[in-house]
Amino acid sequence: MNNFSFYAPTYFAFGRGAENRAGELVKKFGGTKVLLHYGGGSVIRSGLLDRVKDSLKAEGIAYAELGGVKPNPRSGLVYEGIELCRKEGVDFILAVGGGSTIDSSKAIAAGTVYDGDFWDFYEGKPVTKALPVGTVLTIAAAGSEGSPDSVITKEEGMFKRGASGPAYRPKFSILNPELTCTLPAYQTACGATDIIAHLYERYLTNTKNVQTTDRMIEALIMAMVEETPKVIADPNNYDARANIMWAGMMAHNNSCGVGRSQDWTSHQIEHELSALYDCAHGAGLAVTMPAVFRYNMKHDPARFAQIASRVWGVPMNENDLEGTALAGIDALQKFLCSIGMPKNFAELGAKEEDIEYLANTCCYGDGSGNGKIYGFTVLDKEDVRNIFRMMV
Amino acid sequence: MNNFSFYAPTYFAFGRGAENRAGELVKKFGGTKVLLHYGGGSVIRSGLLDRVKDSLKAEGIAYAELGGVKPNPRSGLVYEGIELCRKEGVDFILAVGGGSTIDSSKAIAAGTVYDGDFWDFYEGKPVTKALPVGTVLTIAAAGSEGSPDSVITKEEGMFKRGASGPAYRPKFSILNPELTCTLPAYQTACGATDIIAHLYERYLTNTKNVQTTDRMIEALIMAMVEETPKVIADPNNYDARANIMWAGMMAHNNSCGVGRSQDWTSHQIEHELSALYDCAHGAGLAVTMPAVFRYNMKHDPARFAQIASRVWGVPMNENDLEGTALAGIDALQKFLCSIGMPKNFAELGAKEEDIEYLANTCCYGDGSGNGKIYGFTVLDKEDVRNIFRMMV
Repeated sequence: MNNFSFYAPTYFAFGRGAENRAGELVKKFGGTKVLLHYGGGSVIRSGLLDRVKDSLKAEGIAYAELGGVKPNPRSGLVYEGIELCRKEGVDFILAVGGGSTIDSSKAIAAGTVYDGDFWDFYEGKPVTKALPVGTVLTIAAAGSEGSPDSVITKEEGMFKRGASGPAYRPKFSILNPELTCTLPAYQTACGATDIIAHLYERYLTNTKNVQTTDRMIEALIMAMVEETPKVIADPNNYDARANIMWAGMMAHNNSCGVGRSQDWTSHQIEHELSALYDCAHGAGLAVTMPAVFRYNMKHDPARFAQIASRVWGVPMNENDLEGTALAGIDALQKFLCSIGMPKNFAELGAKEEDIEYLANTCCYGDGSGNGKIYGFTVLDKEDVRNIFRMMV
Repeated sequence: MNNFSFYAPTYFAFGRGAENRAGELVKKFGGTKVLLHYGGGSVIRSGLLDRVKDSLKAEGIAYAELGGVKPNPRSGLVYEGIELCRKEGVDFILAVGGGSTIDSSKAIAAGTVYDGDFWDFYEGKPVTKALPVGTVLTIAAAGSEGSPDSVITKEEGMFKRGASGPAYRPKFSILNPELTCTLPAYQTACGATDIIAHLYERYLTNTKNVQTTDRMIEALIMAMVEETPKVIADPNNYDARANIMWAGMMAHNNSCGVGRSQDWTSHQIEHELSALYDCAHGAGLAVTMPAVFRYNMKHDPARFAQIASRVWGVPMNENDLEGTALAGIDALQKFLCSIGMPKNFAELGAKEEDIEYLANTCCYGDGSGNGKIYGFTVLDKEDVRNIFRMMV
């Protein structure tokens, strides 16, 4: 196991009605003037935003508002948020929404207290300082409610990039599974796929002898495989929603990813799909993961065979690890299709003729197109092109 | 799933040499004058205490010292520590040792800033305020390095009782698996048994549909069952030590116990054994758990059958859940014996003629002997007596 530090000081308020604690929690963590950041439609229609506002008012906390976050959140709104926070003297950002809203909030939080362009953080500068962020989560998916990560898309060039740093861990996150009961099945499944990807990408490690975190990851994937079909069949299954919500947080707060190398290849490749086609990130991952895993399988058949047998119930064939491994990847893809996810470019709405562009953007690097993906394996543009071809 | 709050803001520095970060971390969390609290022998002989002192000196942090913590830590030393902290103006307690040292440190931390008798907290008063505590862990066992709990034994009457509260979460914990390589096999196995108990006692819940935490608990038990024999066979197996150390923390920081009722029956009953005989807590648990589980099995055979089949590989017999359940408890006991743990009163050094006294102290309550244990089931003195008899 590798040396590591782990620090996840997010306060979680979990359960029915937890959103009514928003004001109390902002106060607990020192906020006096809040930016309420959200998407639109559903958080307003459902009355959630009003309940959060009431909770802030009850504690005498002032707020400004910025709605309009879209899936695959854009840098334009971040710049707008930074300006608003500075103008209004905001000292706390409260995200009401899903991963996109939370990621946009984090970017605003870092940008507000930074002299340069916030995009620097998304080109690799570690985030060491940011306004405190709280969240009221409305979809189990990104895990951003408990993670130090954020992903933003820059309009010029449609670059979708991630930033990380301890300052990006939310101070608190309100997790009420009821708030996710109104999600359409497709979005629920996209969220579940994202959670499963966060687990697989931690599982695919080159670090040896990491049994404890291996087992934890397998456990969380098994819980997702059991619980997701229940909410697809019955959107109001509170307990299943709750299981998924906690699994989604645990999948990405990194307690199951410490001390081991990780593999963010599928996320990096998928980002090109959702950036170009504005498809749901989870749907993109459903198409990307099986292709990446099949392409990388020979790098360590035993690892893929282990998850195949432990999670997917594939009989372990020690004399044919590759066969066992592939059967596990097939089972993953079959499961993703069973919850309504796409399985190829056509179902996703992606186009074969864009592959050269996609591979080029993914391996943009310093502009030469010679950038590489460093994960479970090292992939160059030719590899990425091959992987995209496997998705057609 | 039940509503809950979860807040675990402990910073973990994990890996080889991590103890050299003690000074840096005390400073990070605001300590200026430290009480170094420890047991004796091994932390001195190994040079660990000196390395920690060097690290404090390098940051210009002053310290007082209090050694002498014994397993099943006593109230007498806690009173001594409180007096010393007040006299010396200590503002941070640094525990160098195992669960006993950490628990003693937490009691001193709370007592120093409390007007009354610190024992109040161990009779049920929640701990809301305490000096900050840091830890340098030397045995994977109690989980106190990441938990809000502490257990102390009061000399008068030999009452062993627990206290809890958010203020008891350490600010940081240094986890260097190398420090545990010199532990004798017996102590290593006692630690592993304690960890497994923390997991089982969270598993035995009356809350329905808690698949995610069920799976997490099973995962951690499986990791313990795989890794413990490796360190018994080879004490210097760093990776296995590391897996156990992280599992021990995860087992008790409660991320796998949220939103569900828990069952601390085995711990409560065992406390009487280690209080009276001063046996190792883990050894006491090895004798206690199988008896408690067999006694309580009929309360929910399906739950015991589930863990039997998922963790212990017992074939699930839907027509004989009780048989499946019992085979799982047998497998647990067989495993504990295989790592050198005792299986009955004789092997533990406990005496049948003390059972009346043990049951009475356990159910002492308000002094009438009518106290009850509220866990997976509700047990009175008669039940506790029966359970002790099953251990003979």
